[in-house]
Amino acid sequence: MKKEPLILAIDIGGTQFSLALAHSDGRVVRRKVGATNRAEGARWMVEQIIDAAGQLVEGAGTNVGACGIGFGGPVDFAAQRILSSTHVAGWEGVALPALIEDALGVPAVVENDANVGGLGEYAFGAGRGARALVYYTISTGIGGGVIVDGAIYRGGDGNAGELGHCPVVLDGPLCDCGNRGCLEALCSGKSIARRAHEAAAAHPRRARMLRRLAADGEITARIVFAAARAGDGLARELVEETCTYLGMSMASAMNVLAPEVIVVGGGVSKAGRGLLVPLVAQAQRFLMPVHRPHLHIRLARFPSRSVIMGAIALGRGLL
Amino acid sequence: MKKEPLILAIDIGGTQFSLALAHSDGRVVRRKVGATNRAEGARWMVEQIIDAAGQLVEGAGTNVGACGIGFGGPVDFAAQRILSSTHVAGWEGVALPALIEDALGVPAVVENDANVGGLGEYAFGAGRGARALVYYTISTGIGGGVIVDGAIYRGGDGNAGELGHCPVVLDGPLCDCGNRGCLEALCSGKSIARRAHEAAAAHPRRARMLRRLAADGEITARIVFAAARAGDGLARELVEETCTYLGMSMASAMNVLAPEVIVVGGGVSKAGRGLLVPLVAQAQRFLMPVHRPHLHIRLARFPSRSVIMGAIALGRGLL
Repeated sequence: MKKEPLILAIDIGGTQFSLALAHSDGRVVRRKVGATNRAEGARWMVEQIIDAAGQLVEGAGTNVGACGIGFGGPVDFAAQRILSSTHVAGWEGVALPALIEDALGVPAVVENDANVGGLGEYAFGAGRGARALVYYTISTGIGGGVIVDGAIYRGGDGNAGELGHCPVVLDGPLCDCGNRGCLEALCSGKSIARRAHEAAAAHPRRARMLRRLAADGEITARIVFAAARAGDGLARELVEETCTYLGMSMASAMNVLAPEVIVVGGGVSKAGRGLLVPLVAQAQRFLMPVHRPHLHIRLARFPSRSVIMGAIALGRGLL
Repeated sequence: MKKEPLILAIDIGGTQFSLALAHSDGRVVRRKVGATNRAEGARWMVEQIIDAAGQLVEGAGTNVGACGIGFGGPVDFAAQRILSSTHVAGWEGVALPALIEDALGVPAVVENDANVGGLGEYAFGAGRGARALVYYTISTGIGGGVIVDGAIYRGGDGNAGELGHCPVVLDGPLCDCGNRGCLEALCSGKSIARRAHEAAAAHPRRARMLRRLAADGEITARIVFAAARAGDGLARELVEETCTYLGMSMASAMNVLAPEVIVVGGGVSKAGRGLLVPLVAQAQRFLMPVHRPHLHIRLARFPSRSVIMGAIALGRGLL
């Protein structure tokens, strides 16, 4: 019996890149992680990635049939080129799949990491088999992916699924994208932390637990959820407000796309039920009664690994 | 040469129902319009519709091959039954296509009218051939439809495209759906009129032109756009505010679905460039710079007939 070829999966993020060799059913057999060096730029990173991938493939002792890549920034999917990196300079126009194919002889495909993360949850995770799935990844920023009939939905210009930059508050806080009131400017990990600092400055006496938990003075989203879980009033208000805006966004996603499942991943989703319970309540509040029974929000199965899992599914499509 | 069969198209709305016999390329050969009688209920309406359809089909002198129906209310597409009417009691569970097929011997298919309107603009109108199209119909209320790869996108529970009930203002004005701050509660024809009355009451001196144009005392959306066109300051602010919320919604639609075209139909779209120009400006404002070149908002080709045109396209699918 011929051995089924393995898939090389690559996740290129802001602080690190990681690689995995896996079976097409998602079982990972080998892994490798490298640090992103922002100062060295794209060319250096490409060398590091190809080098690490080459070591994995050589060491595999079996056939590697395809490579899927999730990239942290906008990708021109049709041209299979990076448009830009959210984190590192010099990625503009890089045809990463072609470079990998030249170096390793393995056909490769690249896609924006939030889309790939959604595919990972669809293929192996919390949204397995859903006819329509909307994926939110809430970490430093907020990304999104839409999976319809098992494939990443890209829309007309390939930029669908930009959930983090939907406006939710007119003239709201400034977003990194330059606009105001985007979901990301209110509910990303960074924005939750910023709102917590603002609230703590405005209400110093109510912020005692937040300050105590923030040993180094830096109140993070994780600390806000921990304080809320411990019953702290100010933290609870911050979580409630976060879930209000996320709930507005998810109700809109339901109205527009009627997904069978909404999956919430990314670092902030590690807050678990402390996020999920108020989020479901808020999203229900903004839905029409007829839609309420159809709302299914789930925490990601892979809060930190959905991109690598999705890259396996993406690569599998080339086999 | 065998004559191509005609298509029977039916649009069942709140104040009237209309029927057309048409070629599959959209050319209408005969029409018939009847009044909706809310007091008589669904059973009476079904009789009227079948009676009128029978007359059209008999008079056609040629083969009628299929019937497409756009219905003013939620439809269970899979079951081909009406869920309820927005306008008339007694429609719950009515299997209208089966009744028509029994009476006329013509296979029939029914779908929510906003979805059908979007299909009409895709098949014959302002969004012809777009790979992904988002359709807003702005009249008394606001409905929507999403067309992907030439087909109505229904999502998991069949209720996709409910653009009017996406929340745009937290704790905003009360909507007919029972929630607050829905797009419909701010930007439908009825809501524009309500906001105009409120503004006129708050600023009587600034409302002189609005009051003068409203001979019977009733400031309508049409009057607001007419006054804005004539340079009236208060009317311009009302239009600007309307386009701000519609622009937020359309920017979100772009972020989530990346449609090639957004088509704006319904009675309010008859304001033409007086609506389109400020709307494009506002939607651009809420988009990320990378998405701005891809925004294409167009006025509907059929502001009052997109449902009947879509019903032709829907029926054509059965041929």
